[in-house]
Amino acid sequence: MKNLGKLAMSDKVGFIGLGIMGRPMALNLKRADHALFVHARRKESMDPLVAAGAIACATGAEVARQADVIFTMVADTPDVEKVIFGPDGIIEGVRAGSVVVDMSTISPSATRTMAERLRERGAEMLDAPVSGGEAGAVQGVLSIMVGGTDAAYSRVLPLFEAMGRNIVLVGGNGAGQVCKCCNQIAISQTMAGVGEAILLAKASGVDPVKVREALLGGSAKSKILEIHGQRMIDNDYNPGFKAGLHQKDLRVVLETAYELGIALPGTALVSQHLNALVGRGLGDLDSAALFRLLADSSGLGMDMS
Amino acid sequence: MKNLGKLAMSDKVGFIGLGIMGRPMALNLKRADHALFVHARRKESMDPLVAAGAIACATGAEVARQADVIFTMVADTPDVEKVIFGPDGIIEGVRAGSVVVDMSTISPSATRTMAERLRERGAEMLDAPVSGGEAGAVQGVLSIMVGGTDAAYSRVLPLFEAMGRNIVLVGGNGAGQVCKCCNQIAISQTMAGVGEAILLAKASGVDPVKVREALLGGSAKSKILEIHGQRMIDNDYNPGFKAGLHQKDLRVVLETAYELGIALPGTALVSQHLNALVGRGLGDLDSAALFRLLADSSGLGMDMS
Repeated sequence: MKNLGKLAMSDKVGFIGLGIMGRPMALNLKRADHALFVHARRKESMDPLVAAGAIACATGAEVARQADVIFTMVADTPDVEKVIFGPDGIIEGVRAGSVVVDMSTISPSATRTMAERLRERGAEMLDAPVSGGEAGAVQGVLSIMVGGTDAAYSRVLPLFEAMGRNIVLVGGNGAGQVCKCCNQIAISQTMAGVGEAILLAKASGVDPVKVREALLGGSAKSKILEIHGQRMIDNDYNPGFKAGLHQKDLRVVLETAYELGIALPGTALVSQHLNALVGRGLGDLDSAALFRLLADSSGLGMDMS
Repeated sequence: MKNLGKLAMSDKVGFIGLGIMGRPMALNLKRADHALFVHARRKESMDPLVAAGAIACATGAEVARQADVIFTMVADTPDVEKVIFGPDGIIEGVRAGSVVVDMSTISPSATRTMAERLRERGAEMLDAPVSGGEAGAVQGVLSIMVGGTDAAYSRVLPLFEAMGRNIVLVGGNGAGQVCKCCNQIAISQTMAGVGEAILLAKASGVDPVKVREALLGGSAKSKILEIHGQRMIDNDYNPGFKAGLHQKDLRVVLETAYELGIALPGTALVSQHLNALVGRGLGDLDSAALFRLLADSSGLGMDMS
């Protein structure tokens, strides 16, 4: 393996996938003054990056030919596989010594397989899924959970720092994705707990504002109670982090539990709520809309005071 | 209603129920220099209080005859009913203008009924369940969730301040117990989420210490992840808050959901885990032992690294 030392500012950077998350993340890299090669399926998605000085590439292969560190930020496991190994994909242009950094939230086991295939070509892979949503991406304050070698991590760290704030090397390839799974497991059940708590308060005629205040002072204190609890009280489901994405993430978690042969009953329960939420056409709401589903299922709809 | 203004330091204070929680709470009241009349079923339970200058009473009725504000801290709804309305209970000695303050965690609806019965005798009731466990009781830093009238609350507040720190008047009679239910709902599902997250990490061969560190920096941050997550990682289930008490509290929550006709599916699931934990003879462990149950059910026992 070569060139895996410290990132030189002369290292060229690539970014593939310029959606709601990828676009502001790539813009933050550009602002940090990196030479940036971008690719997206739709040409319009590249326009804001080109306006900021990035160079548009027709394919992922072209990005990989130009760049030493290539980021991917797409929706799901098959999308990452296609972007890296599909026709005109990264694999057709990647050079020995390059690092492919996938920041999507996808399967840990598929990630390990992809890292192995890239290693056979002399390239490294890091999995680096994020938490913090669109606002975190825009503000450059994402949490970034990284899996891969120390050397690749050290090399890419200055680029991560342009996009995030809480950056942790969790372990080897796939460990970042496992950590993201853990994050979604913890968040989803905390969300369900906060939702059921606010439901009980409202159904009992007790002011949920007071309940939230009291609970924030003790062992029930959580970011979810603080932020999403307030959204539930306000019936404000402007995302934030969309329920449909949360549903997808829990699918990844439960596929992983299936592969490992472990039972995650609470996660399974919340995933069913999210299925129902998305099935009712509410997948674009913030995932705090879990509360709306819980309330509706007990006949206490959105209009309850 | 009379005498419900500010607490006079000359007000005499009673405390019934001197167990793991009640004893240190009563001692903190005594330290705050209140005349204190105590009663407990077992004489030995009163000894440390008497040594601190409290006066032992043979019955709850006698406490009520002496004291203007009478605290109760016992295990469950029937215990509170017995202590207040049973033979030799508070009701036989309570005076018009006195306040009965129940700090146990019991049924909100039974609490409302008891408050009504006391009101017929000219006495007030506050429900004031606590969070923070034995350590919080000893240190005088309990969270106290109060239901009742403003006047009774204002009168008792200086006494609460001798026992706790985060003290909130949530609403009318029963609202303190509803709030405690909400607290246990939120805590139990957050605990389950943290447990499943750590399980996935361990089963994946990823360091849970790193995962906890990464998660504490983002939306998954919670007191439970911070404190109980560490206990799960260390396999340290020294209570803390016992699983058997958590089981009892969720029974109260689910009885309340039954009365209200609302569905709390996540709480129901965790309550079943707690049933199994207690059924396996592990009810005296800290409720973070929920993790042990989750791990065992997937064949990953206590000895997994």
